[in-house]
Amino acid sequence: MPTLTRFKETRIRKRCGIVLLPALAVLLSLTSASHSCRHREGAFAAYQEATESIRKRGLQEEGAYEILKKITAPGPRLTGSPQAARAVEITLQLMLDLGLDSVHAETVAVNQWVRGEFEEAAVISGPGETTPLSISALGGSVGTPAQGITAPVFEVTSLDELRSTGGGAEGKIVFFNGPMDRKLADPFAAYGRAADQRVRGAVEGAKAGAAAVLVRSLTMRIDGFPHTGLMLYDPAVAQIPAAAVSTEDAEMLHRMLLENPSLLVRLRLSCRMLEPVTSANVVGDIKGTDFPDQIILLGGHLDSWDLGTGAHDDGAGCAHALEALRLLGEAGLKPRRTIRAVMFMDEEFGGTGGRFYARAEERRGEKHLVAFESDRGGFSPLAIAIGGGPGCLKKLRAYAPLFKPLGIREIIPGGGGVDIAPLIESGTVPAGVILDPQRYFDYHHSARDVASAVHPRELELGAIALAVGAFILAQEGI
Amino acid sequence: MPTLTRFKETRIRKRCGIVLLPALAVLLSLTSASHSCRHREGAFAAYQEATESIRKRGLQEEGAYEILKKITAPGPRLTGSPQAARAVEITLQLMLDLGLDSVHAETVAVNQWVRGEFEEAAVISGPGETTPLSISALGGSVGTPAQGITAPVFEVTSLDELRSTGGGAEGKIVFFNGPMDRKLADPFAAYGRAADQRVRGAVEGAKAGAAAVLVRSLTMRIDGFPHTGLMLYDPAVAQIPAAAVSTEDAEMLHRMLLENPSLLVRLRLSCRMLEPVTSANVVGDIKGTDFPDQIILLGGHLDSWDLGTGAHDDGAGCAHALEALRLLGEAGLKPRRTIRAVMFMDEEFGGTGGRFYARAEERRGEKHLVAFESDRGGFSPLAIAIGGGPGCLKKLRAYAPLFKPLGIREIIPGGGGVDIAPLIESGTVPAGVILDPQRYFDYHHSARDVASAVHPRELELGAIALAVGAFILAQEGI
Repeated sequence: MPTLTRFKETRIRKRCGIVLLPALAVLLSLTSASHSCRHREGAFAAYQEATESIRKRGLQEEGAYEILKKITAPGPRLTGSPQAARAVEITLQLMLDLGLDSVHAETVAVNQWVRGEFEEAAVISGPGETTPLSISALGGSVGTPAQGITAPVFEVTSLDELRSTGGGAEGKIVFFNGPMDRKLADPFAAYGRAADQRVRGAVEGAKAGAAAVLVRSLTMRIDGFPHTGLMLYDPAVAQIPAAAVSTEDAEMLHRMLLENPSLLVRLRLSCRMLEPVTSANVVGDIKGTDFPDQIILLGGHLDSWDLGTGAHDDGAGCAHALEALRLLGEAGLKPRRTIRAVMFMDEEFGGTGGRFYARAEERRGEKHLVAFESDRGGFSPLAIAIGGGPGCLKKLRAYAPLFKPLGIREIIPGGGGVDIAPLIESGTVPAGVILDPQRYFDYHHSARDVASAVHPRELELGAIALAVGAFILAQEGI
Repeated sequence: MPTLTRFKETRIRKRCGIVLLPALAVLLSLTSASHSCRHREGAFAAYQEATESIRKRGLQEEGAYEILKKITAPGPRLTGSPQAARAVEITLQLMLDLGLDSVHAETVAVNQWVRGEFEEAAVISGPGETTPLSISALGGSVGTPAQGITAPVFEVTSLDELRSTGGGAEGKIVFFNGPMDRKLADPFAAYGRAADQRVRGAVEGAKAGAAAVLVRSLTMRIDGFPHTGLMLYDPAVAQIPAAAVSTEDAEMLHRMLLENPSLLVRLRLSCRMLEPVTSANVVGDIKGTDFPDQIILLGGHLDSWDLGTGAHDDGAGCAHALEALRLLGEAGLKPRRTIRAVMFMDEEFGGTGGRFYARAEERRGEKHLVAFESDRGGFSPLAIAIGGGPGCLKKLRAYAPLFKPLGIREIIPGGGGVDIAPLIESGTVPAGVILDPQRYFDYHHSARDVASAVHPRELELGAIALAVGAFILAQEGI
């Protein structure tokens, strides 16, 4: 990390571009200084003042958690659901209450998948010997007939294993029981390696002639909660039902199969896809004073899975973005470039909102310089990531000391996400606040993902880091 | 942080000193290489193998949490209590089960403070208007008469405020209501600034003529749990009773006092000091192959407060140390210098165990090079701290890349703690694993500090970091 000394050697800038509201007396003297400053020390000092002001207010008020509670108040916000529609209304009002500029919704056409009336599974070991399984249909799955599918079980630990031994899967329920690899220190890496069972399991199962698939939940913990998530079909392959089973019951089923390989599982799912409906992304700005059409975007997604209330995924990301704008506003900071919060709809079913946003009529004349996506929960921030190559990295690293008091020890290359991917394809620089990843998959896509699982202070630190990062980039450009 | 390139430029070492058990086939080829290596690349590569082996086993097995459950099994382990005595027995057996060398207990004479039969407080706002307060006597406090102390309340937010306005405190219950400053990003800094109310409140209250003191619990959260902790008397000042009140009830009492400054509080405490008893530190080694008398110490404390089961404070520290030794043993690593776990007794009442350890007969002929103390909970590790000046820092920083896969982004100057303070005074270099501090005071010294508040994976990462740090120092010396 560059030290302050090294920072002082960096090149001067003509303008520091901090404009302050008269109310912020503490920064007033710095304002006049920064208007005339001819070197980055001035900017640095002003950013430092701004950062401290933001940090103190944020940590004292813990406003991100208040926002989180409002966004999760409608309950689970499955794309296309009435609760998701209610979340759009709440977010519009929240942005207006925060005094944001150009608050509006942008229409998104989304699919609507519903879980329906029933959802159950059980092991049938013999006459009258029925053991229920804790399951949850995967998002996008077709249902079973009303009487369910009852079949023997074919257990594998990966798609590859199914492909190489699939001859025995015909007519059976394929049980993907590959655990997330706990030996990896980064749970997201372990998730990345195991998630193909959930996403592609039904297609590979159908190819092997299976009647349905059960997938071990993607969490490192052994507990009774199924973790749902997206699965995909292939137009060229038959659609068979797919459900997640809790890790506890996956282990139980594994043991039962060792004792009795011919046991049956009965799976009943009423889930189905309805007609597409209209939903919306929600957008609000702090308009830039000098370059209003140059955008620093802070994004999270409003939709969630339906087992919990999507507090970490992604109420936290929404709260991060909105609290960052609130803190900048409360500090009276007027960025040179526009800082925009976008609450995307339908990240979970594949990023419809992100695609609609990137190609919307409203984008005409706008240039998105940087897009931060927060979609990894509400945990303690550890690092700031930025893409765009060494120049962007160096620019932000010059301000690394500002992030240190927040516990952020590194500025690293990185950034990205489902919602901002279409922007990045068009040249926007991705960025993000890297959060402690260890607990994320305890909650992810399960009934445990509720507001009480989010720590108000950890959440707030992320929002503060985002506010500081966005403000610096809004002043400095890239 | 030094890069690998920079590391390669550092000076060669004659011996890398890794001896491996025959069982560890994966490391076998490295062993022969390392015996003949003439430069640090060899050591680095060997440490890297060792680190990976330790990390994989640790994260897969999460043994630290199993150890934590054993240590907390007796329940709260207040110094001098039967549960603390039971924890000594359990730890001795645990060390024997782990196959440690020279497992033994070292006698420590400790005070025994007991909470006694009753403990209660209430606000009396008028005839028949009684509102209970959630309180807990502070450790070391004298009790009240059996009928309690009933007195008006004198509210202040700091010792200084009492000193400057103390004229009105005569005969009253002084209510220290200074909150931990949430605006500080580091909760330990906030704790450090507020803790004097708890530690010195009774002395300053007595000087002002108060009948007793009530102290706002030291946590940033607003909840119903009192957080106890040590308080001290001054031989020259009268001893008055002292209790912590939950933050929720502190805020309530504050509001009630605004409405009715003449309300009364009744405080009844039966706590008292008994005669000193004999307890013990528990010690176990992995004996060094080359320099058995040179010690790298890993310490936690066995005693706890009595409201929870002391899982974060300091079951986690004990589990860190014991799991580190378990992982080194399981990996078949034989350190050149002795790596020792010390489970200290009586950290909470002022570090008796640490003082006894430093001056014990057993220390004759031993040289303690480095002492790690883990006493800040079981959260995700963020950094490694080491004292002893730039040389020690540089030495450990050469191995920074080994810690990176554990999420540890920095090696920084630091280290220390109550238990190892007497060693440090004699020249031992302090060290520590820096953990995420944000949630620690949610649990600290309260009924919430139980095993379910510790995340098995976060705890394990700390133990792995400790194992790696201790092993490198045991091989390299300082």
